[in-house]
Amino acid sequence: MTHPTIYHIPVCPFCQRLDILLTLKSRRDEVDFQLIDITHPRPDWLLHKTRGTTALPILETADGHIIKESLVILQYLEDIYPERPVAQRDPWRHAVENMLTRMDGEFFSQGYTWLMNQDPALREALREGMLKQYAQLNDFLLEHAPSGPFLFEDFGWAETVFTPFFERFWFLEYYENFVLPDEPRYARVRAWVEACIGHPAAQQTTREEVVKLYYDYSKGAGNGALLPGRSKSSMAFEPDWRDRPWPPKNKYEHSATDAELGL
Amino acid sequence: MTHPTIYHIPVCPFCQRLDILLTLKSRRDEVDFQLIDITHPRPDWLLHKTRGTTALPILETADGHIIKESLVILQYLEDIYPERPVAQRDPWRHAVENMLTRMDGEFFSQGYTWLMNQDPALREALREGMLKQYAQLNDFLLEHAPSGPFLFEDFGWAETVFTPFFERFWFLEYYENFVLPDEPRYARVRAWVEACIGHPAAQQTTREEVVKLYYDYSKGAGNGALLPGRSKSSMAFEPDWRDRPWPPKNKYEHSATDAELGL
Repeated sequence: MTHPTIYHIPVCPFCQRLDILLTLKSRRDEVDFQLIDITHPRPDWLLHKTRGTTALPILETADGHIIKESLVILQYLEDIYPERPVAQRDPWRHAVENMLTRMDGEFFSQGYTWLMNQDPALREALREGMLKQYAQLNDFLLEHAPSGPFLFEDFGWAETVFTPFFERFWFLEYYENFVLPDEPRYARVRAWVEACIGHPAAQQTTREEVVKLYYDYSKGAGNGALLPGRSKSSMAFEPDWRDRPWPPKNKYEHSATDAELGL
Repeated sequence: MTHPTIYHIPVCPFCQRLDILLTLKSRRDEVDFQLIDITHPRPDWLLHKTRGTTALPILETADGHIIKESLVILQYLEDIYPERPVAQRDPWRHAVENMLTRMDGEFFSQGYTWLMNQDPALREALREGMLKQYAQLNDFLLEHAPSGPFLFEDFGWAETVFTPFFERFWFLEYYENFVLPDEPRYARVRAWVEACIGHPAAQQTTREEVVKLYYDYSKGAGNGALLPGRSKSSMAFEPDWRDRPWPPKNKYEHSATDAELGL
């Protein structure tokens, strides 16, 4: 039997979820990962597989079926590799992690909206919105897992879903000077974030890679789109991000050239 | 052991999902359903249970835990009553129904946004948006279940999730003259909608109840809010909807009084 194949984008948080889950299950080598360069139009063979949609990741099963949506793919992987379960099996515990997981959409949106914001007048409201998101997570964790650091005994389903966002939000620290205030109301979520980011199964990316690749997002250009005056996206595969300089942090005052970004 | 309790709102589509699932499992009598009147502020005892949130339904487990979000509650009920499974057990089939289920948010939003719209100039765009949603469902069903009428052999998980919306969208037929065009591109989804609405497990409401209770939504007032000049919401428990006249259909030209609505 051939393996499932995952078509993914480097540094995409939804793709990293799958990588984390497979790592937790020690099944990383049983799935073929194929990188897609989003700075070029999707190839026809890929659009044929997806019937025209462009969102990634997708998973192609061993017998050629296509599954879309990271949470649906996570569940599929959990189902076909039931050993070392990552999701909780007890109904109430499963409900708790599902409630937390459903908070992912707003959390993600708030962080990416702030990163992509170009109006300095909105920064303070965006910071407040982000803090509100962290406060909601803090409250949830205090209610259901006061001692922590994880929601249950180990890094599990909710951590698999959220950790890629915690790692992406390094871009807010760099481009927006956002750090979670050292206040009691964020103490529980801070402990969760730190335990998640430090877990061995969640080391697929680094602060440096995130900051360099997301430069164009910080200037409002998502999904590999080209900014005015530029010939290359910061999401490009080449040159390797390790060989590029750190981007300028002053996104509201300056637009970096290809050369300044080492592209 | 005491039973779980569901706190719900009459004619709320998210609440109906739970009712349908329990009916499919022949467990309807093992859960206590408690009606909440959303035309009054939430009672303190309920806000205490939810820790301040107002969205319904919520489920209180037999040992006093609170579960929020209809899809999370559905999964909990599926887990505690595993006989007569409603969700698919095969990983690929489960992924298919999960992909379809994830299309629920946009479908719901489009229908409710249109119902609540007050600007006649936007009607055509809202109609187009609604048709696009049906076309997406049609494409999905053609890909995964061309013969139908259901996604799999029987009314299942995806049908439990979507049928309450199909029944609510009777309000679009009444207030916006929306009917799905008799065209081949909607034929598959039309067959699905009809089979869903006609299923014995999904008879918790009627076109008449939906149309009468949602009058205020059609005028832009959701969640039991009061419209200007009115003293009572169309979502009120009394007088019983059966004793009220059918509301005026011309939402863009006229605002009905309490008396016209039989309130």
